[in-house]
Order: sequence, then C-alpha cells, then structure tokens
Amino acid sequence: MEKNYHMTPGQFREEGKKLIDWIADYYEQVENYPVLSTVQPGDIRKQLPPQAPEKGEPFDAMMSDVNKLIMPGITHWQSPNFFAYFQSNTSGPSILGELLSAGLGVQGMLWATSPACTELESQVMDWLVDMMGLPAHFKTTASGGGVIQDTASNAALAALLAARERKTNFSSNLTGESSRLVAYVSTQTHSSVEKGIKVMGIGTNRLRKIEVDEHFAMRPEALENQLKKDMKNGFIPFFVCGTVGTTSSNAVDPLREIGEICKKYDVWFHVDAAMSGTAAVCPEFRSHFDGLQLADSYAFNPHKWMFTNFDCDCFYVADKAILIKTLSILPEYLKNEATEKGAVIDYRDWHVQLGRRFRALKLWFVIRHYGAEGLRYHIGEHIRLARELASWIKTSADFELLNEPPFNLVCFRHKASDEFNKKLMDRLNKSGRIYLTHTVLNGTFWLRMSIGQTQTKQEHVARAWELIREMAKQ
Amino acid sequence: MEKNYHMTPGQFREEGKKLIDWIADYYEQVENYPVLSTVQPGDIRKQLPPQAPEKGEPFDAMMSDVNKLIMPGITHWQSPNFFAYFQSNTSGPSILGELLSAGLGVQGMLWATSPACTELESQVMDWLVDMMGLPAHFKTTASGGGVIQDTASNAALAALLAARERKTNFSSNLTGESSRLVAYVSTQTHSSVEKGIKVMGIGTNRLRKIEVDEHFAMRPEALENQLKKDMKNGFIPFFVCGTVGTTSSNAVDPLREIGEICKKYDVWFHVDAAMSGTAAVCPEFRSHFDGLQLADSYAFNPHKWMFTNFDCDCFYVADKAILIKTLSILPEYLKNEATEKGAVIDYRDWHVQLGRRFRALKLWFVIRHYGAEGLRYHIGEHIRLARELASWIKTSADFELLNEPPFNLVCFRHKASDEFNKKLMDRLNKSGRIYLTHTVLNGTFWLRMSIGQTQTKQEHVARAWELIREMAKQ
Repeated sequence: MEKNYHMTPGQFREEGKKLIDWIADYYEQVENYPVLSTVQPGDIRKQLPPQAPEKGEPFDAMMSDVNKLIMPGITHWQSPNFFAYFQSNTSGPSILGELLSAGLGVQGMLWATSPACTELESQVMDWLVDMMGLPAHFKTTASGGGVIQDTASNAALAALLAARERKTNFSSNLTGESSRLVAYVSTQTHSSVEKGIKVMGIGTNRLRKIEVDEHFAMRPEALENQLKKDMKNGFIPFFVCGTVGTTSSNAVDPLREIGEICKKYDVWFHVDAAMSGTAAVCPEFRSHFDGLQLADSYAFNPHKWMFTNFDCDCFYVADKAILIKTLSILPEYLKNEATEKGAVIDYRDWHVQLGRRFRALKLWFVIRHYGAEGLRYHIGEHIRLARELASWIKTSADFELLNEPPFNLVCFRHKASDEFNKKLMDRLNKSGRIYLTHTVLNGTFWLRMSIGQTQTKQEHVARAWELIREMAKQ
Repeated sequence: MEKNYHMTPGQFREEGKKLIDWIADYYEQVENYPVLSTVQPGDIRKQLPPQAPEKGEPFDAMMSDVNKLIMPGITHWQSPNFFAYFQSNTSGPSILGELLSAGLGVQGMLWATSPACTELESQVMDWLVDMMGLPAHFKTTASGGGVIQDTASNAALAALLAARERKTNFSSNLTGESSRLVAYVSTQTHSSVEKGIKVMGIGTNRLRKIEVDEHFAMRPEALENQLKKDMKNGFIPFFVCGTVGTTSSNAVDPLREIGEICKKYDVWFHVDAAMSGTAAVCPEFRSHFDGLQLADSYAFNPHKWMFTNFDCDCFYVADKAILIKTLSILPEYLKNEATEKGAVIDYRDWHVQLGRRFRALKLWFVIRHYGAEGLRYHIGEHIRLARELASWIKTSADFELLNEPPFNLVCFRHKASDEFNKKLMDRLNKSGRIYLTHTVLNGTFWLRMSIGQTQTKQEHVARAWELIREMAKQ
C-alpha cells in the first residue's frame, strides 16, 4: 500500500502561517532577549536526544523545542542592540524573498536550469551599478559582470584565482611562473585573503602585508617599494587587495593610487568593501570609492548592511571572460543547447560551487521594497548615528575615540588600561543589554561598535552609550 | 523627522501568510507547468525595468511580477515530472526550516556567535552517522566530525586541501613537495574534483583519471599501477576520490579495495556520494558503502535526495584536527573566550567561507518530520520505481537498458542512432510534460532518468515511460 509521510499542502499552510506569526512576534520582542547568548559550551547539545527519531513528529513538537532548547542558544543578530562584528542583516522583504526561493527550490547552475534565476540576477547586479555609482564596465551588458557569491571570502578567492590565471596565461600549475607569484594586502586586510592564498596553494610566505598609515590605510609608496623589491628578487606580483572599510577600524585604502600602481605593474586589483560598500548608495559617501574604476574586481555584501539575508555577496569583475575561463569545466551531463550557443550566462562558471539557489529574489525584493530612496535614508541614518556617538565620545572625559568614523564603525576605548577595557566589554556583553566586540590596533585594545543593524535607531545608540558610561564607572 | 521604510511586523504577517498560501498553491499546481522553461535567452531580462526603482513599491507589485515575469522562466525542479540531472529537493518541513533560519538571521561562524547553531549541527550530523550506518569515528564526539558544507564541490575542495596539508606536513607552498603532488579520480568522477584541483593550484595534468570497468566503476588494480608508476617517477600521491553513485551512470566504486590501497600508500581517501549517499538510510542498500570505514572524508547531499533544501551537503572527516589545522585563521577581531579555551567547535575552520547561516534547522526539521521510518519509505520507493522502470525498458523491443540501477538512476536508450535519441530527448523536454537529461558513456548517447523528486510516484514514472514510447514512435 502506498504511504505518504510528506507534509501536505494543507499542513504547510497551517504551520507556515504559524511560523510567519512566530517570526513577526520574534521581531516585536527581540529587544527583550539578552543579545549575546548566555549558555555554556555543551548546554544545548546535552538537551537534544542522542538519536534521530524513528517515527515522525508533529511540527508543533519542533517549534516547542525551538522555543525551549534553541532560543536560549541564539545570539540575537537581529536585535537593534547588536553592535558586534559587522552586522548580518535581515528585513521583511528579504526574509520573504528567501522563503520564495526555498519554495521554488530551483537550481541556477546553468541558464537552462531556470532562466529567470540567471537573468534576474544579472539585471539586479546591473541595477546596483547605476544605483551605487559603480564603474559602468562592471555591468554584464559591458565587458564585465556581476554575480552573487555566498561570501566575500569566496569572492576574494575567485578574484585570486582569476588573477593567477591571467598572470600565468591560463597555464597555472605548480611549476614555472606560479611558483614565483606574490600577493599584496595591507596589515588590516580581512583574513579571508590569507585563507584564499592558502587554499590556492600559494604559501602564506608569499603574501606581503604592506604597512599602513596613521589612519590604518595602506601606504601606496610602501606597496610600490615592495613590488619593486620582489620583482628584483625574481618574484611575480599578481594580486593586490585594497579595502574600503577594514574590519578592525573601517579604514579606507587609497584606491586610486593603489590602482595606478597595479596598472603600472600589470597586477590584478581587487577591492573588498564587504561591509562599507553599501554606503555607496548615498552619493555623499562615494568619494571613498574614488579609484574603483581601476579595479579588476570588487565585492560588497548586501547580507551585511543592505537588509538582505545572508548569503548575498555582490561580486563584480571588469572582464568576465577571464573569470569564466578560470572557473569553467563542462562535463557531458551539463551540456545543453543554450550554453553551446554561447548566448547565455552560466553562473556555475563564476564561482567554485556548481549548485546555486535563487538568491537574486531576496535582493530584488529588498531593492523594490525600499527603493533607492529608502536605502539611502536608512544607511545615511546609521552613519549619522555613528558620527553622533563619536561626538559624544570626544566630549567625554573618560573615553577616547580612535578616529572620525568614515562610515558606521566607531572605535573607542576607556582611557584606563587594556585590561579595564576588556573587563568592561565582558561585563557589557554579559549584561545581555548590548553586544559589542573589540580589536587590537598598534598593540592597544579598542572597543568596536558597528551601527548597522536594520532596526537600530537613535534611542538604541543613546542607551548603549549610557550603559557603557555607567558600567565603566562601576 | 525620523522616517521608517522598513516592513512592519504587521505587513510581514499579512504578506508572509499570502506567500505561504502562494507556495502551497504552487505545490498543488506544479504538475500543470511545463517542467523545462520554454523562454528564450533574454526573454526575462528584457521585461525588467532598466533601473532600480527610486521609490519603494508594495509587496503585491513584486508578487505580481513573480507571477507574470519570473514564473515563465522557472524550470520546475519541484515537479514530480522532473527526472533531469540529480534532483534538488524540497519538502514542507525543510522550507519552513529555511524560513525560520532566515527569520532568526544568525551567523554561525563561531560557536559564540550563536551556540545553538553549532551544537544543533554537530548533534544532527552525529544522528545521521547512526541513522545511516556510517563509520562511528565520523562523529564529532569521536576523532572525526561532521559539518554542513554548501555543496559537494566545496566538500571535495576541503578534502583536497586537508589531504595536501597532511601529506606536506602543513608546510604547503608552491615549492618542494607540493610541486610533485598527484591526485586520482576515475574517468567517471564528478567534475568538481577537477575544479578543486585547479583551484588549489595543482595543474590538472597532475590529476590521473583511472580507467573503469564494464560497470563504470574504478579499477583498483589500475589505480595501484598508476600510483606505483607515479611514485617511481618521483611524484607524491596525496588524494584519491571514490564515488558511490556517479553522476553519469550511478556507478559504485569498490570502496574497500580502493581504501586498502590508500592505506597502503598513505593517501587521503575521499568518498563522494552526493546523490546516492541518502540511500544509506535503508539498511538494504548499505552494502554499496562497504569500505567507507577506510575513508578519510565523506560527503553526501541531503539537498539532493533527502527532501532538504539546497544548500545542505553533509561532510564528514575521520580526523577533525587535520581539517581544522588546514583551514583555521584567527584574526584578533574574532577572538573570544570560548574559542580560546578550546571547549567548542568553530565551524568557520571547517570550510573556506567565514560566514555561515543556520542550516542545521532545516535538516533537523526534515529528520524529525519524516522520522527514520518515513525517510526509509520514500527513498526505498524511489529505488523501487527505478527498478520497475528498468524492468519495463528491458522487456521493450525498442529500448535498451544500460545496467541494473543500483539506486534510483535509470540509463537507457532507444536502439536507433544517437541522433535519434538526442531528438527524442529534445522533443520530450520541449513537450513540457517531463524533463530528463543525457550522458555519453563509451562514446554512446544515453538518456538519464533520475527518480528522486520528493513528490514523484508510480503514476509519474508510468506516464513518463508511456510518453517516451509514444514520442519515439512518432
């Protein structure tokens, strides 16, 4: 006899609507949870059964366990009091876009496996070029093109790989030129580039960490000196990463000067603006991106600050042919008419993964829901709040500010010892009322407050500052 | 004046519930859509506005465009008449798990950034070890451990990287031993390993494609001969990939014999069972996995056949310390107490990406909804249907069967020319009534029917076979 263990559409309607309400309730109450989870290692696991159930269970049982077992182990990234790391935002239209993508369940590895998945992605990526004042040659309709990668880590890896192939004329292997390749970052560049260097088989002793200036931005003259020195020693420079908004302190590397050096020495120039890239929706912050025209590749993450669920990294290249040549492999079972005619984009050839889901939906929903106007407003507000916080810190007797925040990250410290600041951070985080993280710059411990959570408003920043001063006094 | 462009919880409730109904409606009607999209290249894009909207739009406008512009460009992977490639399944509990994950919007890069995200993943991965009869040392509570990767491509890459590090004693760079590394696959291994070899900087001329037997399974003696020959020539074998259920024909490599060769020559043994791995929920199919005990790493994709939304690849290693040592990088801004004490798993060190979403939720929901019993039933049914289709093909005068399907992939062809079979496939796919793909084996064109879509039942397979015979006659 035929059995059916699947959830029926009727059950899906019922449970789905309850879950929609659950999520709406969550956002209405998220401020009441301690931001940083207070559980100890193993607390969650020990409450879970040691074996998978033999018999199916009703959906209510799962949701009851979500409430009882999972929620205490959640650090609330969607709390307006989350100021840690860089944000990883959601928004209503984005969650619904993710839901629709999950419901349709299509694979976008090839154009043919769902043309809309590819074409909407190309269109939305091109929209962003205009909306954010990015170089026009990044458009898919020009020489370049954009693709949604999962993370800035994989975007950096794709850039590294394409850079190597270009430099070695697509003959990369472990002998010959490849063994003399050298890459350049600053001491402040995100660790994902170092990880990428390891992954691609270039020893990390071939990664040069260029020194930075007093604003933690790469020194172009130091870069050029190192390039010359390496070439003199028989090395082959192939990749430079510049950053708009470093993770530690939001420093902005001088893209134009770095880009000109890259052109001069024929080196791939990648620009990482994972967090701060979203600021380019506001014309008044685009001066920080001056020189991006010289970049071979560029990445920023709507899943950080553009109210779009993880994962959604926008990765652009100036010359898509190089990227595709780097990453394409076409086995027989993936051959199809549209691909063979060359009339389409097959995004499988733009990243390491083969499979890919319909991620453009959520980004499309977000852009249409907010409009360029709404995005400008909320991003501008976050930056305004960061500057306001910076101004409070500057007038405080006990605290010092690292620098004027170019975007939405405020680095500051109590004038007491590093040990004091560490303890202050731990106490603040353990209070559950806010969550912030730290960095070390020039050997000194600094508190970091990133003001970029979707729902963070003036009142949250003001209360956080009040709490920080209060706890520092205790 | 403070403005607010965000979707309110009230709007989210309303639009979310409408979208839940839309998805339920979709699953009730999915059979009425042509399976393979019939649009031409550019058809979707040209209907989309050239610029992002300046003003925000109501959610209804987006959903109206989804219906009008997007749906014609969808290839319906969730149709029970989808027999192409390998499936990429969804199910009710999985879609809801994905929705909950999007709603919570947490990052699981570190244990501390949401302990439940890490601990539930470890627990569910360990559940699967017992539920599927996998080697007990794959458990996180033993020497090994499991992690959810996005795809089998990245699982293979992680395995390759760990294999290289182990073989070069964690001193991998472009000189010395690394320049003599050689990897081994069969002629039938998935192209992702070749892509991984390129990514990691080992020229594809260092990838040996070992010949296969009459069942398209790797010949162990040919592997051993090649290993000996390479070592004699000064190469260093570091990686062998065996497959349970190849993409072309579902061939099963002899894991035990390959594994013993790998032990003998101290080579990393990775087993890829991306599609067919799910069959191990049924004890009667576990003989195909004999020898998996000898594997250093193993991957299978619940996002293919276990009713779990993409992306969800289960990746296991026998020795987690090697994988972690291979992929860990700890910058200052990610340091935290739990990590420093070493009491927790930080899954960031188990893959290339830093960020990761809460993917264990959907897998947990699926396992609990179906129970082991429900999963066994539906997987067993798909395999039974594949065998039934195979029996019909065998008794047909006009068609021939490639081989007895070990799992759920049926390869067959009309006894006429390759050209005839190609035309037959194109006509079947253009009819919109079913979607199937092809492969080429020993120079001959074969049709592939993968019977593994969540909702595929006897009636769909029977109607597909009827349609195939009918169209072949025309």
